[in-house]
Amino acid sequence: MRVAGAHDALGSTLAWQAGFQAVWASSFEISASRCLPDASVLTMTEYLAAATNMQKAVGIPVVADVDTGYGNNLNVAHMVREYEAGRITAVCIEDKVYPKVNSFAATSHDLLPVSDFARRIGTAKAAQRGEDFYVIARTEALINGLGVEEALKRCYAYAEAGADAVLIHSKKKDQQEIVEFLDGWDGRLPVVVVPTTYPQWSAAEAEKHGASVVIYANQGLRATVQALRETFRTICQDGTSLGVEDVIAPVSDIFALQKLDEWLALEA
Amino acid sequence: MRVAGAHDALGSTLAWQAGFQAVWASSFEISASRCLPDASVLTMTEYLAAATNMQKAVGIPVVADVDTGYGNNLNVAHMVREYEAGRITAVCIEDKVYPKVNSFAATSHDLLPVSDFARRIGTAKAAQRGEDFYVIARTEALINGLGVEEALKRCYAYAEAGADAVLIHSKKKDQQEIVEFLDGWDGRLPVVVVPTTYPQWSAAEAEKHGASVVIYANQGLRATVQALRETFRTICQDGTSLGVEDVIAPVSDIFALQKLDEWLALEA
Amino acid sequence: MRVAGAHDALGSTLAWQAGFQAVWASSFEISASRCLPDASVLTMTEYLAAATNMQKAVGIPVVADVDTGYGNNLNVAHMVREYEAGRITAVCIEDKVYPKVNSFAATSHDLLPVSDFARRIGTAKAAQRGEDFYVIARTEALINGLGVEEALKRCYAYAEAGADAVLIHSKKKDQQEIVEFLDGWDGRLPVVVVPTTYPQWSAAEAEKHGASVVIYANQGLRATVQALRETFRTICQDGTSLGVEDVIAPVSDIFALQKLDEWLALEA
Amino acid sequence: MRVAGAHDALGSTLAWQAGFQAVWASSFEISASRCLPDASVLTMTEYLAAATNMQKAVGIPVVADVDTGYGNNLNVAHMVREYEAGRITAVCIEDKVYPKVNSFAATSHDLLPVSDFARRIGTAKAAQRGEDFYVIARTEALINGLGVEEALKRCYAYAEAGADAVLIHSKKKDQQEIVEFLDGWDGRLPVVVVPTTYPQWSAAEAEKHGASVVIYANQGLRATVQALRETFRTICQDGTSLGVEDVIAPVSDIFALQKLDEWLALEA
Repeated sequence: MRVAGAHDALGSTLAWQAGFQAVWASSFEISASRCLPDASVLTMTEYLAAATNMQKAVGIPVVADVDTGYGNNLNVAHMVREYEAGRITAVCIEDKVYPKVNSFAATSHDLLPVSDFARRIGTAKAAQRGEDFYVIARTEALINGLGVEEALKRCYAYAEAGADAVLIHSKKKDQQEIVEFLDGWDGRLPVVVVPTTYPQWSAAEAEKHGASVVIYANQGLRATVQALRETFRTICQDGTSLGVEDVIAPVSDIFALQKLDEWLALEA
Repeated sequence: MRVAGAHDALGSTLAWQAGFQAVWASSFEISASRCLPDASVLTMTEYLAAATNMQKAVGIPVVADVDTGYGNNLNVAHMVREYEAGRITAVCIEDKVYPKVNSFAATSHDLLPVSDFARRIGTAKAAQRGEDFYVIARTEALINGLGVEEALKRCYAYAEAGADAVLIHSKKKDQQEIVEFLDGWDGRLPVVVVPTTYPQWSAAEAEKHGASVVIYANQGLRATVQALRETFRTICQDGTSLGVEDVIAPVSDIFALQKLDEWLALEA
Repeated sequence: MRVAGAHDALGSTLAWQAGFQAVWASSFEISASRCLPDASVLTMTEYLAAATNMQKAVGIPVVADVDTGYGNNLNVAHMVREYEAGRITAVCIEDKVYPKVNSFAATSHDLLPVSDFARRIGTAKAAQRGEDFYVIARTEALINGLGVEEALKRCYAYAEAGADAVLIHSKKKDQQEIVEFLDGWDGRLPVVVVPTTYPQWSAAEAEKHGASVVIYANQGLRATVQALRETFRTICQDGTSLGVEDVIAPVSDIFALQKLDEWLALEA
Repeated sequence: MRVAGAHDALGSTLAWQAGFQAVWASSFEISASRCLPDASVLTMTEYLAAATNMQKAVGIPVVADVDTGYGNNLNVAHMVREYEAGRITAVCIEDKVYPKVNSFAATSHDLLPVSDFARRIGTAKAAQRGEDFYVIARTEALINGLGVEEALKRCYAYAEAGADAVLIHSKKKDQQEIVEFLDGWDGRLPVVVVPTTYPQWSAAEAEKHGASVVIYANQGLRATVQALRETFRTICQDGTSLGVEDVIAPVSDIFALQKLDEWLALEA
């Protein structure tokens, strides 16, 4: 399964139209859209509102990045009930301490003891009310430099605690650690990978090593920034939008994304 | 003054960095980011939240597109108080009937009687509490095919009622009507123009005819859609993001937009 | 079925504990809790958030008072999708023109033509996605002085259009009109009544005449205002809360309503 | 100064009308209104929305109970900016570890090291942008059983760090500890007290010992619960509201609190 990161209904819809099978409601993207750091500064309320608006727009699942779960076990139980009530399909909780900082930031990334996070996963699963809600346990062991063995140990413990899948994250320039993890994993649960810093590693290769889900977590955001920069610079310099008209989508494309005709038919 | 449309803090910040002097919190953009029609379907609460998040991120004014004001005079008075409380600099109210539809949509666009809308402008100005809040009266007379004379008559009435500026909108392929309006206007208030369908008409030309503000209302959104489409298609087809890495902004640019270092220093 | 009005989770829970079988998410109560008029000034977003928080707290259905549906057919379709997504059981739409004013206010209350509102009901029912969502059509014909015959004619048309129940409202000091309506109604749909201005008319009597649902719409709010007034006055005059301690609930009761022990067990 | 706790605009307005000079936006009340524990389960977004709605309704200051500040120094800086943007007059931060639990709950209440919390207060003050925003430092030293000397030591450190006032809290049945604190305090900053568990201690006595502010933090909520219980029970048992009509406020009182006539005049 291939998944694209997004932060709003529009990006989610375009990911869906492009052929992605799920959308990642990225904390990095959502906080960036607010020009605030990906550091537990925005609240669960704000992340949930973004994820819910995304899920309403698409016919594919939204996997919500819920960082550490926003505090302790009470926060995690509450989070699960709120996301489930918001009809989100899955949440991904990571084993860092609240408040966390984005994994690519050059700072320390403290982890919870494995037993504490395993209990947190159990709390999350016990809190859900229906059958169709999934909890992905994400280990930041590699981000924290603890090595593949610790990452495997943690993921087995999280599987034992009831996780529905595990996510293994790395910020190395190559995929070596991730491949080792996958080769060492016994397959008891699906594994999710996020090739942000090692884009040379294809989804096909990841899948060959046993990964079930590949997330392209923030390329859409980064494309948006580039496009806005160029567009705004051109218009500002030229004093007219003439120079961008041929490369930007026409207004009619926006109307189509808004399903304007379908809506207007209700008052016809 | 040159203004760029946006729908979130990120777009607003990039417009600011590009040199725009204000940001237009566009209803078209905000509703499109939700994949919902620009037809009074989103609520004031949602438009205000977007505008407030935009204003918090930038050091330039946000001009909020508040459509018709969301109902009658009670709604307009409440809207003014809420936007002022949210520290928005200016709102722009149009003389269409609630619920409105986007001006470029091929449907009817009923206007309020001029005296009713003039009273509405007076209500808006009476509702504000401080000095630093501005109400722009937008006429849709040209959108409705009523001609330049009616547009001028309406704008004079709105000026009389206390508007701080007027906005004249057209969906023609050329700027002829707008030029006629500007040439006929006696200059008692600043005039705002929005060259969406006549991009060949430059800000410099508009200013030569007396326009004070030129809004590039939705080009950023349209650039975003195009960029997301291409990026998602390439990644989905290739099964890797390698093909887009060179054309999208690096993660470090996102960190800079989030002012990550400045935030992390608080815990250093 | 007997229903109590409320505006938050706390009031809803206390209504549930008292034995009511459903909760009325009253626009009058919700707007009063904000000290704003019940006049379409708050937005759907705000009413929905209140209703959702109420529904999350109780094991009985929440019936949401959605006034006129917030605009035209587009607004009604969007409202239904949003309330259904928020897991609200039922909405009640009234046949007044947006923006409406509270029915007890001494002002005019314009109605939509019967065919327009019937179409609105059809739009609402067509917009719902699941089976377990109900639309109650409320006529304000008696509020508008149009008489019982018009009220019946309207309710039959709304039944024809797909309503799941009808609500008949009056602001007379006695129940005469309502009794006439019930005696004239052919029973094709359940009828909801709201004995606010004729409290001498018991639920048992209403049921004898064929009413299926009796709503006590705002007595909780009015009790709250009285209790707060007395409590605050006593404390302010006395300069101590000693005089109220015996008549207010102890802190332990609040903890029980918050299920504090159950929550704390998650971290034990 | 005497302050009443509330959780919405209605309670705040009634406190103001009763003569209180400020309103305490109580986390205990706000979470109770949601039937959720006062244990950092609701988010800053939700507490801020409540406080903002309260401040909009009254002409007296709102003092917002912001618990621990919602995380680390980043969260505190962000909190200050958001509350200041929401025009809240003052926030009160306590020196417990996030996530906290209500001080009256029979559980442990871990404190931050004094230097960490002092730095947090400094961060809060550095984050504010205008002059008219106040940060109250609340110590939970007595709640944690650390004694009056530790409480004084902490409050001096917080004063040093820039706090505008200190709040001293106790859950003892008598005011003895608080009196000792006040008698030991050198008066460099105003002291706030909260006589919840020792209601026999009057505001006049507190002021005699040097307290500047007395908060009656949750009596309004507790009165509301009692009033709703009795009202709902009576109506449910009787099958009519006749038995409560004489003791609850009339609908016209609610209209007055909503300023209905003033609003309707806008459309007259």
